[in-house]
Amino acid sequence: MHSFRELLEQFEKRFNIQEFPEQPARLYDAARHMLHMQGKRIRPILCLMGNELFDEIVEDAFEAAAAIELFHNFTLIHDDIMDKAPLRRGQITVHEKFGEPTAILAGDVMLVQAYEHLKYISAEILPDILHAFNQAARLVCEGQQLDMEFEARHPSEIPMDAYIEMITLKTSVLLSVSLQIGALIGGAGDRNIHHLYEFGKYLGIAFQIQDDWLDAFGDPQQIGKQQGGDILSNKKTFLLVKAYEIADAHQRQQLDAAFQHNGQQKVQQVLALFEALHIPQWAETEKKKYTERALHHLEEIAVISSRKKPLEELVNYLLNRTS
Amino acid sequence: MHSFRELLEQFEKRFNIQEFPEQPARLYDAARHMLHMQGKRIRPILCLMGNELFDEIVEDAFEAAAAIELFHNFTLIHDDIMDKAPLRRGQITVHEKFGEPTAILAGDVMLVQAYEHLKYISAEILPDILHAFNQAARLVCEGQQLDMEFEARHPSEIPMDAYIEMITLKTSVLLSVSLQIGALIGGAGDRNIHHLYEFGKYLGIAFQIQDDWLDAFGDPQQIGKQQGGDILSNKKTFLLVKAYEIADAHQRQQLDAAFQHNGQQKVQQVLALFEALHIPQWAETEKKKYTERALHHLEEIAVISSRKKPLEELVNYLLNRTS
Repeated sequence: MHSFRELLEQFEKRFNIQEFPEQPARLYDAARHMLHMQGKRIRPILCLMGNELFDEIVEDAFEAAAAIELFHNFTLIHDDIMDKAPLRRGQITVHEKFGEPTAILAGDVMLVQAYEHLKYISAEILPDILHAFNQAARLVCEGQQLDMEFEARHPSEIPMDAYIEMITLKTSVLLSVSLQIGALIGGAGDRNIHHLYEFGKYLGIAFQIQDDWLDAFGDPQQIGKQQGGDILSNKKTFLLVKAYEIADAHQRQQLDAAFQHNGQQKVQQVLALFEALHIPQWAETEKKKYTERALHHLEEIAVISSRKKPLEELVNYLLNRTS
Repeated sequence: MHSFRELLEQFEKRFNIQEFPEQPARLYDAARHMLHMQGKRIRPILCLMGNELFDEIVEDAFEAAAAIELFHNFTLIHDDIMDKAPLRRGQITVHEKFGEPTAILAGDVMLVQAYEHLKYISAEILPDILHAFNQAARLVCEGQQLDMEFEARHPSEIPMDAYIEMITLKTSVLLSVSLQIGALIGGAGDRNIHHLYEFGKYLGIAFQIQDDWLDAFGDPQQIGKQQGGDILSNKKTFLLVKAYEIADAHQRQQLDAAFQHNGQQKVQQVLALFEALHIPQWAETEKKKYTERALHHLEEIAVISSRKKPLEELVNYLLNRTS
């Protein structure tokens, strides 16, 4: 079995020689700009881990992992356009640097490139993998649409279950399908794949809660971005949706008022209200709840325990990270 | 053998039950809005004709044809955003009706849906077809990028060969690959596929010349849009690039001056200069030249002549159309 770090190294070695054509230079410079932003590569590594849970890692899994990472980067380029985000991972976004039209096209061409990697997958499993990939891709688009629609609403008008459904589509589904595709390549049966998919789903929700918590309460030095970035941009987070859900009429007014401010004043006021509503404690409890659900499904997968170790370590790392 | 009209009827029957999910309603309403604009369906019919050139039309060809038509519609949605086009086929564009973010996503989800149709293609030929499709998709994106870059240049700075290369990528490649995929499904060999691909390439160029000519010199009543739409929007067309290529210094100044005007005055002045430069005659000659090249490659395809009839009729229709 390989650790996250070992798989990451193997993946990067192959992925980084990703070759785009020379021309049109502007189009492929835009695509490369995104790929050079170096994400955590969680999804492709999940694909490799899903594969290694059932068999030795084969070439097909590396191709699928590359497809998944390209797909993820395609969504980031297009999401940043839709969200009008100036920065990502501390760097200028593709549309800010190259303009929206080229950014749209760079995303498109990256999605096509993702499918080109799938082409190399063994013909006998290709239809199933293509279907799983398409299904997930569609759901991720649906999640982004719901996210945008939620952004236009007042947070008190977003029921928690609808919010969790959106996060499931936007974040969890791709984690799940990464594991699922790896497992399909490894020859896993339906029952194991079902549990692996559910594992990814709950891991994704727990991951998002941790992400939202870090943005609000993490150490800005460690996370490498401004504290309360989500608050400053009025983003609908787990914390905010929950806060409005449990706030009484007076507290809601206070929250509304805090969001009228700007800068650090806004952040501090909202954080104080979150504290008063015990949101950090709630987030910790929820994160634990979803983590336990995830681990329950991992438990249910019928392979020897030692094979599950890298995934358990990954859960531990992702949900206790401070950056 | 089936005529264009017969194949269109068969294709529409299947394609129009294209089902998108109900929710999120706004996302899929946007996708449906595009599909309801009813194009000519040239590309999917070329795929069916490519198939029938070598064999009876099989289910795989209908799936590929649907994928191609969805891909084409995806490019139209995204191109319209990039070009800031308010209308397409006389109707309000997707981004004008639903906003840019939803239009970007509707395009994305349509591209994914295209790949979902490919999933149904027989496993033994799927990798080749996926590769051909991806290749074409990438080239079409490159063509759109070049088109945008050309739009930012003065027409005198666009060499005709670079312009033809752009049109080849943006228009011809998809016609070629539609035929190629149909032929692959029909079991065609490399040599026949090569000639069919070249046929599509030259057909595309001739088609674009006819399109540009119609926009400038066609009967507005028949083409259902304003005469000189391309001139009004300063679009780089075959006619314009050629006009600048052959104009002397004085005529270039006259062209530059004409483009400073607006409305019908602009159209009439530019058209008069086109006439003085014999652009309509040149366009007719070029169209014939590329049509002959296309027909030469059709000739070279080793199947009995009667099988080629629908394609010959299609060439005749496309290049002599008045609307």
